[in-house]
Amino acid sequence: MKKVKTAVVGASGYTGQELLRILLRHRGVELVCATSRQYAGQELCDVFPRFRHVPGADLKFTDSDVAAIAATGAEAAFLALPHGVAAAYARGLVEAGLRVIDLSADFRLNDPAVYEEFYGKAHPDVELMQEAVYGMPERHREAIEKARIVGSPGCYPTSIILPLAPLLREGLLLPDDIVVNSGSGVSGAGRKADIAYNFCECNENMHAYSLPRHRHLSEIEQELSLEAGAKVVITFTPHLMPVNTGILTTTVAKLAPGATAEAVGACLHRAYDGAPFVRLMGENKPAETKYVTRTNFVDIGWSVDARTHRLVLMSAEDNVIKGAGGQGVHAFNVMFGFDETEGLWLI
Amino acid sequence: MKKVKTAVVGASGYTGQELLRILLRHRGVELVCATSRQYAGQELCDVFPRFRHVPGADLKFTDSDVAAIAATGAEAAFLALPHGVAAAYARGLVEAGLRVIDLSADFRLNDPAVYEEFYGKAHPDVELMQEAVYGMPERHREAIEKARIVGSPGCYPTSIILPLAPLLREGLLLPDDIVVNSGSGVSGAGRKADIAYNFCECNENMHAYSLPRHRHLSEIEQELSLEAGAKVVITFTPHLMPVNTGILTTTVAKLAPGATAEAVGACLHRAYDGAPFVRLMGENKPAETKYVTRTNFVDIGWSVDARTHRLVLMSAEDNVIKGAGGQGVHAFNVMFGFDETEGLWLI
Amino acid sequence: MKKVKTAVVGASGYTGQELLRILLRHRGVELVCATSRQYAGQELCDVFPRFRHVPGADLKFTDSDVAAIAATGAEAAFLALPHGVAAAYARGLVEAGLRVIDLSADFRLNDPAVYEEFYGKAHPDVELMQEAVYGMPERHREAIEKARIVGSPGCYPTSIILPLAPLLREGLLLPDDIVVNSGSGVSGAGRKADIAYNFCECNENMHAYSLPRHRHLSEIEQELSLEAGAKVVITFTPHLMPVNTGILTTTVAKLAPGATAEAVGACLHRAYDGAPFVRLMGENKPAETKYVTRTNFVDIGWSVDARTHRLVLMSAEDNVIKGAGGQGVHAFNVMFGFDETEGLWLI
Amino acid sequence: MKKVKTAVVGASGYTGQELLRILLRHRGVELVCATSRQYAGQELCDVFPRFRHVPGADLKFTDSDVAAIAATGAEAAFLALPHGVAAAYARGLVEAGLRVIDLSADFRLNDPAVYEEFYGKAHPDVELMQEAVYGMPERHREAIEKARIVGSPGCYPTSIILPLAPLLREGLLLPDDIVVNSGSGVSGAGRKADIAYNFCECNENMHAYSLPRHRHLSEIEQELSLEAGAKVVITFTPHLMPVNTGILTTTVAKLAPGATAEAVGACLHRAYDGAPFVRLMGENKPAETKYVTRTNFVDIGWSVDARTHRLVLMSAEDNVIKGAGGQGVHAFNVMFGFDETEGLWLI
Repeated sequence: MKKVKTAVVGASGYTGQELLRILLRHRGVELVCATSRQYAGQELCDVFPRFRHVPGADLKFTDSDVAAIAATGAEAAFLALPHGVAAAYARGLVEAGLRVIDLSADFRLNDPAVYEEFYGKAHPDVELMQEAVYGMPERHREAIEKARIVGSPGCYPTSIILPLAPLLREGLLLPDDIVVNSGSGVSGAGRKADIAYNFCECNENMHAYSLPRHRHLSEIEQELSLEAGAKVVITFTPHLMPVNTGILTTTVAKLAPGATAEAVGACLHRAYDGAPFVRLMGENKPAETKYVTRTNFVDIGWSVDARTHRLVLMSAEDNVIKGAGGQGVHAFNVMFGFDETEGLWLI
Repeated sequence: MKKVKTAVVGASGYTGQELLRILLRHRGVELVCATSRQYAGQELCDVFPRFRHVPGADLKFTDSDVAAIAATGAEAAFLALPHGVAAAYARGLVEAGLRVIDLSADFRLNDPAVYEEFYGKAHPDVELMQEAVYGMPERHREAIEKARIVGSPGCYPTSIILPLAPLLREGLLLPDDIVVNSGSGVSGAGRKADIAYNFCECNENMHAYSLPRHRHLSEIEQELSLEAGAKVVITFTPHLMPVNTGILTTTVAKLAPGATAEAVGACLHRAYDGAPFVRLMGENKPAETKYVTRTNFVDIGWSVDARTHRLVLMSAEDNVIKGAGGQGVHAFNVMFGFDETEGLWLI
Repeated sequence: MKKVKTAVVGASGYTGQELLRILLRHRGVELVCATSRQYAGQELCDVFPRFRHVPGADLKFTDSDVAAIAATGAEAAFLALPHGVAAAYARGLVEAGLRVIDLSADFRLNDPAVYEEFYGKAHPDVELMQEAVYGMPERHREAIEKARIVGSPGCYPTSIILPLAPLLREGLLLPDDIVVNSGSGVSGAGRKADIAYNFCECNENMHAYSLPRHRHLSEIEQELSLEAGAKVVITFTPHLMPVNTGILTTTVAKLAPGATAEAVGACLHRAYDGAPFVRLMGENKPAETKYVTRTNFVDIGWSVDARTHRLVLMSAEDNVIKGAGGQGVHAFNVMFGFDETEGLWLI
Repeated sequence: MKKVKTAVVGASGYTGQELLRILLRHRGVELVCATSRQYAGQELCDVFPRFRHVPGADLKFTDSDVAAIAATGAEAAFLALPHGVAAAYARGLVEAGLRVIDLSADFRLNDPAVYEEFYGKAHPDVELMQEAVYGMPERHREAIEKARIVGSPGCYPTSIILPLAPLLREGLLLPDDIVVNSGSGVSGAGRKADIAYNFCECNENMHAYSLPRHRHLSEIEQELSLEAGAKVVITFTPHLMPVNTGILTTTVAKLAPGATAEAVGACLHRAYDGAPFVRLMGENKPAETKYVTRTNFVDIGWSVDARTHRLVLMSAEDNVIKGAGGQGVHAFNVMFGFDETEGLWLI
């Protein structure tokens, strides 16, 4: 199997760790560069002791410099940087000929006004933002194949968009009556010293946060509107769950007149029977985070509330894999002509 | 302080344990009887080792016989029995002159047809069911004062009804567009040997259950319809959370035209400023289960989603205290003329 | 009941919170002052939302000034400050006539050389250190009654000293062959922003720490040597457990020739049958942290390994109650003539 | 790569699940048979939903019949059956020409008297028990290569024997003064309905169990005595930890006169520098379970307590991988000539 020289920029957080975990065992990847300002000079396996003894994990973190990254001969670069920081690297890497998969929010939107509304400042590179492809292979595979830059979807959006997209596309749901509740494992908050994420604060606890408007709404509504052919505005409430990883989403939407549970099931099967990483649980079958953690799967169940003619969609994924690095590698596989599942049969 | 001779029938589950924990320290209670078929003859503190050395915890469990319970001279009886079993005890105890607080679902509904629809069989004592008062002191205090039998509310219903009731009563919400998501700690499933509640199955996991229709819907809709003056039908999805105790509820409802965040806050304050166990967190302030576990408080926050003109209500309580035994003791205090908070300043 | 005007100095950590939780409901305490540099001006119940609505919890935190504390008329002061900081307050408070209960390590040792060896600097007030009484009421009750200053024992030491003390005193164990392993809940590390105590780092994990020598060894060996009448040196390995609170200690010691399980049990019963907070589980009965968390109890079980003539002692307590604030209140009760259990029947 | 036809007998517990997880991705395995009385007729991925969509996971469980297993053409069989049940299958499978790796305790001992002492009954097939090789590849590689039947080591024994073995072999420790404390994740208790393993009973709790004598002592002492060239008798106390998987062992042993930390480190490096799955953390470096869960690694740290001339060994592994199925696959790799690490670079 051919090997693609690959760089990971900003690899020291929880997302970076999972991404490295996948890439170290991907048969089509030669990891040539991993950057981290904080850990420059240390081996990957010193920073992430899980990796000790694993072939390739003695690579040393380097500083995060565009020219140095390009000089490694890397053909592909994953950016696992904070929102707002990734944009500063993308232009230089793309111009140096690398194909870029950005795991931050910097290249997910196409409307600069929406970016500014949700992120509080103008986007620094609108042209590249508008060139970027939203990296959800189940929906944008062809565009990803040719993309120079991919904005890999957020963790919440992935769990919300995938079940809703085909149903909105086929008109089975009313686009203006959608209520979404999600919970995320604590790794979603990142690897940082903050008393709010101390064990004693999160353990034996659960609560909503980011009221009244979470930033991920922007990309969720952008993509759902595309599918519905109409402006979709939803109510979305994220929660912090006392688990390391996992996202659980419960979406409640008004069914279109005449829409049935059978029609919902048939629509989802049409959309996803060929999708390796989408697993349909069936009617009245919940998705459980324990079945998807540490994998690239998203599980989807559904239930019709006949008393209110509403549909309840239940979806589960791993926030740092399908919701981050795994989905990025999925896009990488599409971009570089590998089998979609290469490196991703994680169970 | 006067002492009320009190019996607890069926005291060996998680709810029974918390109820005993409260009653053992209630200054107005003389615990004269605790029954458990399984543990008859053993001391309370042998079954619940937390209680060792605590005054009164050397009481022995007895068998569950109505005549024997009455013979103890008990004036009050709490029933902590499974749904369907409680009704078999209530009539005899009431006729023996005891005032009964039932923690099961047997005496919460007033319509026998609804009972049959949700519980799958006819109610064995419709007359007593219709006499029973729904034991939510914040809403039915006067009726509780005089009641011979109280049906103490369910755990989910308490967290759902309390925030919604005043808003529906004052017409600030549309009654036909309410979506509720709740999560419960594993103690809500009871103290039983079932692989589904094994540590390894629940830990690091979260999922919905009881799709498409949970039994608690019946009492939720009964009480909300009373408040709204119109039939309220909601979509309710319960989830299992990886914590021992706690309920977190997120309710999303369409605001009436013109209703504002200020009006919502003012309405909630009018309703609950004098209620000792309802704590209003404020606008855009989430409720967190860690602040209410092991207490009789329910915390309520709210947030207006201006983009969709929906209200998000966040509420948290302890499922085995405010959602079970604590609320029962609150009703007991009202029935026997104690201060509402007697025995319940649990922090 | 008389009320003792009481101050808590440095009340904003996990220990401070539990101490306040107890004092707010202690019938003999009038809380006149709680200090916190970080939270000065805020109400207790704003910093600790669990306390909202509880009588007395609207007291405001003040700055930590000795003169200001004394000016409140306080007769007693608890110091819940970091090691090294407490000593700076103790002298002034004692001279102002307050009786001081220090929860830090500053007043637990009586040998200044040992203090310097384990804490890395000279003690700033050797005279007061040597006057201070080691605040373990089961062993030093009479001295505590009269003490101006009490050094309240550490969390690990309490769980280790209590089971060993009577056995060493009566010569049932060899004093030179004791191996102790303990685990502590994460609250033992304090309430601070440090990535090592992030939920994702502690959850689903366990490990030893503080190798090769934990500071608490100093007070453990001081007290055990007192009991044995000979220098006791032990091997002690602390571990971090993925729970909020609780200490579990397993002590393995060589039995003296001829010592039996029966003799061990009889000795422990002699020592503790009148001790309200020590519960003896029996032979081959483990102690479990879940039975003691949020209480002031320490549970002790024992088992004889006949194959090696060793004794295994198992003890459990709550690190922030019996291992901190609860034990301090126990000493306070002894100092001010209250019933030992006043405010401490926490179950 | 050649494919070995492989059967898994009794594959429906937590150990079976992890074993299947490994075998489904092992390039040298063709899984021809998985048995389970309870689940016969169902696909692997129905019983273990994690496996849905994974190639090979649509295999159906069959009943557990020796002739039927042999008829599949299997060359190798893993037995993941309860202790006492495995022996009933082993003889037939071996005589049918399969090479057997037994994950139960039935073939780990070589002395029938010791088996009877610890397991309470005579071994049903002493001849085969004595033929069996103790399947620890780091110590018995050559015997495993040729073995017809391997008794794969227990979870606790693996974490205890590996750090001690070279040190006893080289005389750095006194063989008669070893105290071992271990904790195991709840999966170690198996996948069964038992209220003792309910989430609410294990969560936020820790305790010792199996006092005064755990069955695993028998194999630990057998193997350590082999290494020491003298009878080794240890004190071993197992604990239940509130995590899904992981074993943490802290071993405290008296150093031989003159033995130093340097000598300990050098000895461990000599023994394990070529061992792919043993990772030496270094002096005063603890092993943490989070770095080894879901991998086949065992991590070992050490610390010398100069005050008592004792050595503290810290070791961590995953109880259902290195402590069960992973170690079995390691032996399988040795038996069938694969690279030792085939299928086991789990990170």
